[in-house]
Amino acid sequence: MKIYVLGAGSIGSLLGALLARAGNDVLLIGREEQVKAVNENGLKVIGVEEFEIKVKASLYSPEEPPELLLLTTKSYSTKKALECARNCIGDKTWVLSVQNGLGNEELALKITPNVIGGITTNGAMLVDWGVVRWTGKGITVIGKYPTGKSEFVEEVAKVFNGAGIETSVTENAIGWKWAKAIVNSVINGLGTVLEVKNGVLRDVPELEGISIEIAREGCMVAQQLGVEFEVHPLELLWDTIERTRENYNSTLQDIMRGRKTEVDYIHGKIVEYAHSLGLEAPRNELLWAIIKAKENLNRGRAKFETEV
Amino acid sequence: MKIYVLGAGSIGSLLGALLARAGNDVLLIGREEQVKAVNENGLKVIGVEEFEIKVKASLYSPEEPPELLLLTTKSYSTKKALECARNCIGDKTWVLSVQNGLGNEELALKITPNVIGGITTNGAMLVDWGVVRWTGKGITVIGKYPTGKSEFVEEVAKVFNGAGIETSVTENAIGWKWAKAIVNSVINGLGTVLEVKNGVLRDVPELEGISIEIAREGCMVAQQLGVEFEVHPLELLWDTIERTRENYNSTLQDIMRGRKTEVDYIHGKIVEYAHSLGLEAPRNELLWAIIKAKENLNRGRAKFETEV
Repeated sequence: MKIYVLGAGSIGSLLGALLARAGNDVLLIGREEQVKAVNENGLKVIGVEEFEIKVKASLYSPEEPPELLLLTTKSYSTKKALECARNCIGDKTWVLSVQNGLGNEELALKITPNVIGGITTNGAMLVDWGVVRWTGKGITVIGKYPTGKSEFVEEVAKVFNGAGIETSVTENAIGWKWAKAIVNSVINGLGTVLEVKNGVLRDVPELEGISIEIAREGCMVAQQLGVEFEVHPLELLWDTIERTRENYNSTLQDIMRGRKTEVDYIHGKIVEYAHSLGLEAPRNELLWAIIKAKENLNRGRAKFETEV
Repeated sequence: MKIYVLGAGSIGSLLGALLARAGNDVLLIGREEQVKAVNENGLKVIGVEEFEIKVKASLYSPEEPPELLLLTTKSYSTKKALECARNCIGDKTWVLSVQNGLGNEELALKITPNVIGGITTNGAMLVDWGVVRWTGKGITVIGKYPTGKSEFVEEVAKVFNGAGIETSVTENAIGWKWAKAIVNSVINGLGTVLEVKNGVLRDVPELEGISIEIAREGCMVAQQLGVEFEVHPLELLWDTIERTRENYNSTLQDIMRGRKTEVDYIHGKIVEYAHSLGLEAPRNELLWAIIKAKENLNRGRAKFETEV
């Protein structure tokens, strides 16, 4: 399959490397340093599996449309990335977002009806330009967005599974996106505010009740929007915490590196949707404000030095 | 005036030293180390003013009742302290709490109707046993609790003012206690979660809106309880932040020293009163849970080493 990976950060580089190794025609579109490193030395994967693979990389998307445009930028870059890549989104191109947070598929739908929503629980970390650590094997769920079936989605799942990316198909992609966002609202919210590994959220008794209350706010908003869940977000929450006990969540990683976070697309979106319905989401709003303040205070003051 | 200061920590030691210097008959009741140091070397005050003064100190309250029992323990110790001091609370003894948080006066009212509620914005820090730093001159407001007038309160105010403790009298003590607790719910809440000096709450734009929302929860609960304010808590909030820009709030100081905090008597009480009225206080509840978790994670792991 001809695939452009738009966003050559940690998860984009991991999926790109796995898809390229399986023989797909992959082009990585990303930042200058990463593009240079990948074109010179290929991609190196370490961690769960270890291999090196030659992958093409570019700063811009070519005119020729791919079959699949895999969106892997940070959510705050989606709008700009899609504008830049618009020239390559043809009638038969499908856009698949496996990004965290809410609202990315809606942006893609403004350009094409061929949109796939996805979530992935694979963990990845860019440890150097051209070097990605696969920190944890997870599952990927994809489906026509917001809901429904499509043969192409089945094909993508086949390609992903063939590349060693464990993937299943859903007819309720929006439900999975919301469930993941709700899980992130708890883990990234409390984990970032407390600056702790995910497992701590299960170890400190005072956090259980409040975790449920935070998740309930997102569930309430989703239900009012007519979103249904295949797996209850709380079940997914406890399972995710257990499987990622030793991880720092991505928002905290961004804070520690003095970078912008995706908080506007997790807590911010839940609050925004709540307000649009005339509801409140006070816990998400407070977590949003605290994380925005941390972002503001930490910007440029990286605490971790080893990762890019 | 014959005064027992129950709780020989920072604020108790400061007020005790000032009252003793003005010629009052002061007895400090406190922990072993502090009692030993004060009996051996007197109290040393540094900071705003600098002086040394001979003060009596004891582990227990004598049988003979004082005119004024000044409650200056941490709020979580009030119940036990009052039980131990019960023997000295005579018919003519008045109990004055200048503690942070809510609920202390209610405990005193179970023993005697002669209860004065007070707030103080004086800053103090025990830097060594027997040595207290007066970190900032503030005001003290006292009044018959919950509301009303009493000649004895006027007398106490005269004694305090005569000792250099700027004090005014209110007929609405409960309103001041709530206003101070609401101010603390914002400053100690956000300041502790973010681990920043008070001034940061005014410098980071994202924190203004949420500060107002947190304060509103407390105001709503107070109003439902019939409490009225002489000064609006928001006005007191912005004023307090400006005057204490360079301070770390007391809850954060406790966290940094690996100690128990008064969060149960600030956020915890606001939530408790809200629930008793069938209301919610979700922002206070979330701040409570985060601070409890920090307390739990930090207990015994002091980050500051210089203060006792």
